[in-house]
Amino acid sequence: MSRNQTVYNFNPGPATLPKEVMVQAQEEFTDYRGLGYGIVEASHRGEAFKDVLARTEQNVRELLEVPEEYAVLFLQGGASLQFAMVPMNLMMPGRPAVYADTGAWTAKAIKEAKLFGDVEIVFSGKEAGYACIGDPQSWEVRSDASYLYICSNNTIRGTQYHFFPDGGGVPLVADMSSDIMSRPLDIARFGLIFAGAQKNLGPAGVTLVVLRKDLLARTPEGLTAMLRYGTHVEKDSCFNTPPVFAIYMLGLVTDWLKGQGGLAAVERINTVKSQTLYEMIDSTTFYQGTAEAGDRSKMNITFRLPNPELEALFVKEAAENGLIGLKGHRSVGGIRASCYNAMPLAGISCLVDFMTEFEARHG
Amino acid sequence: MSRNQTVYNFNPGPATLPKEVMVQAQEEFTDYRGLGYGIVEASHRGEAFKDVLARTEQNVRELLEVPEEYAVLFLQGGASLQFAMVPMNLMMPGRPAVYADTGAWTAKAIKEAKLFGDVEIVFSGKEAGYACIGDPQSWEVRSDASYLYICSNNTIRGTQYHFFPDGGGVPLVADMSSDIMSRPLDIARFGLIFAGAQKNLGPAGVTLVVLRKDLLARTPEGLTAMLRYGTHVEKDSCFNTPPVFAIYMLGLVTDWLKGQGGLAAVERINTVKSQTLYEMIDSTTFYQGTAEAGDRSKMNITFRLPNPELEALFVKEAAENGLIGLKGHRSVGGIRASCYNAMPLAGISCLVDFMTEFEARHG
Repeated sequence: MSRNQTVYNFNPGPATLPKEVMVQAQEEFTDYRGLGYGIVEASHRGEAFKDVLARTEQNVRELLEVPEEYAVLFLQGGASLQFAMVPMNLMMPGRPAVYADTGAWTAKAIKEAKLFGDVEIVFSGKEAGYACIGDPQSWEVRSDASYLYICSNNTIRGTQYHFFPDGGGVPLVADMSSDIMSRPLDIARFGLIFAGAQKNLGPAGVTLVVLRKDLLARTPEGLTAMLRYGTHVEKDSCFNTPPVFAIYMLGLVTDWLKGQGGLAAVERINTVKSQTLYEMIDSTTFYQGTAEAGDRSKMNITFRLPNPELEALFVKEAAENGLIGLKGHRSVGGIRASCYNAMPLAGISCLVDFMTEFEARHG
Repeated sequence: MSRNQTVYNFNPGPATLPKEVMVQAQEEFTDYRGLGYGIVEASHRGEAFKDVLARTEQNVRELLEVPEEYAVLFLQGGASLQFAMVPMNLMMPGRPAVYADTGAWTAKAIKEAKLFGDVEIVFSGKEAGYACIGDPQSWEVRSDASYLYICSNNTIRGTQYHFFPDGGGVPLVADMSSDIMSRPLDIARFGLIFAGAQKNLGPAGVTLVVLRKDLLARTPEGLTAMLRYGTHVEKDSCFNTPPVFAIYMLGLVTDWLKGQGGLAAVERINTVKSQTLYEMIDSTTFYQGTAEAGDRSKMNITFRLPNPELEALFVKEAAENGLIGLKGHRSVGGIRASCYNAMPLAGISCLVDFMTEFEARHG
């Protein structure tokens, strides 16, 4: 790879950020808008950061059309801490939590939830190698469940919910770490959503949580302050020092998403990007998609080559051509092209060209 | 304040970072050492970040002379999450934890610890308005205590331990968020230390933890994965996606500390800085220090003016002169000059000049 070659970063997260965002953050890194110091050095109690936080929350509310009765939080600890915070805050005595197991991330969430109460599995894709989501709209969820939990996009096998289940009166909780803000969302269908920022929203180190405030009443007495959603709602995400720079970057990314025309426009672009890649995959037997066609993800496009040796060569040669991060998750192998919001169409075109050329040489 | 005036940021955290670090981070922000993308966009499983993480851990080990039997962790959630993680992991059944209450941060830690077991207070500075530390070397700690907990520097009233207690066989746990790496430390005296990075080490969003590995055996079964120190020791701080950019910045700051000559050299500079300010304060009755002389902090220099109106004017006029963040904590008022490692001596000189001039006009 030559030093000045354009690099397209297909890593699954932390991932590529919009070029305009990176340039702006660089420009104002040491002097934030004339303050004489960087936002990374700014007090979380000062006007500059308070303004960043307020505008970032407003961006989230606008883009996701968050209803008034929902809180928007910026926390730390990633989705992995949410795997515990969700049951710690939302599980009610004698009322099981219902989980759909669609991949490694739900399996981890289930493991944590079991530490706090009974868990029932409404769907498991495990025997099918997590290649499918099933038929979420047909799931019957017991009416006394504490909540119904899903992961909206599964990065490892490249599946995604295209229809969400209806829990009836049971709050729907979703880990949206890998497809948040990739499409419009009807927040009113959910009790709580969360997303680690490092795929679609910004840098690693901040977790977006949107939750319906009436659910706060469930949190049991005696839960430690940092793990209570209510603590952070009450203090507007500033109970303790928040990750200032990560929130600032999330603010810039959401500015950029608004500039793209909002989530409906972003979804159209994501559809074109993923269709372009899936059409390439489906045009040949050399590349084989790993997810069931109806459940394919627009974020993580996963496929195999005829053998692991060719896959390793593909990853290596792609990197030499500036297409990096294409190695599949270590648990499944193969190839994974993560195409989050910030991956430009030009990156997809380069990848398709490379795939065509690679097949011509090795097919 | 004119736009091109030098600004000295005396905020208590997030705080000023070394100028050289800020410039380097800016230079390589969009293209990390020829990779073609920024470290903020780099996969935590990739070589670039793995190298950052390894070098940063090595810097911490060198600067603090961390013995082999200690683990070095980079976590999320700040000191506030440590207030819970410490008792969750280290409290043993029937063996109380012993706390020294020297300020608002220990009070918060005590409140959290009480959720998990019995707490005994070995010293309380509360009645004295937290203006002193007491005589830590005279404290008698019951030999069956789970641990002895202190906060080495108290940002609000500006006190600092200049001598550490000896717990005998009882592990000493210290919140060092506001004076970590401001002076050499004999880690072997401690069972566990932790520090939110945003004062002396880097940006908000990463927490340094150094702990003696034999203490891991205490963690009870059933504790959720993210809150177990053992999880992070086992996975070298990469159990889940770590805060990549914050760790990278901590790496640059520790490079800079090494460049300063290590912690003994850094302490000498901090001594000069704080002595300069305390001498100014003690040279007049116009300024009154708030901490007892023997317990004064080298990090947070706190003082009062004759009345709150003059204090407000001082803060306002100082800011107009490029000296920002001098307002005391909202719970106590007054003035606080936070002079962490990255505050240059030039900033102290400017502050002293301003104090002299302000007194001449208003004294």
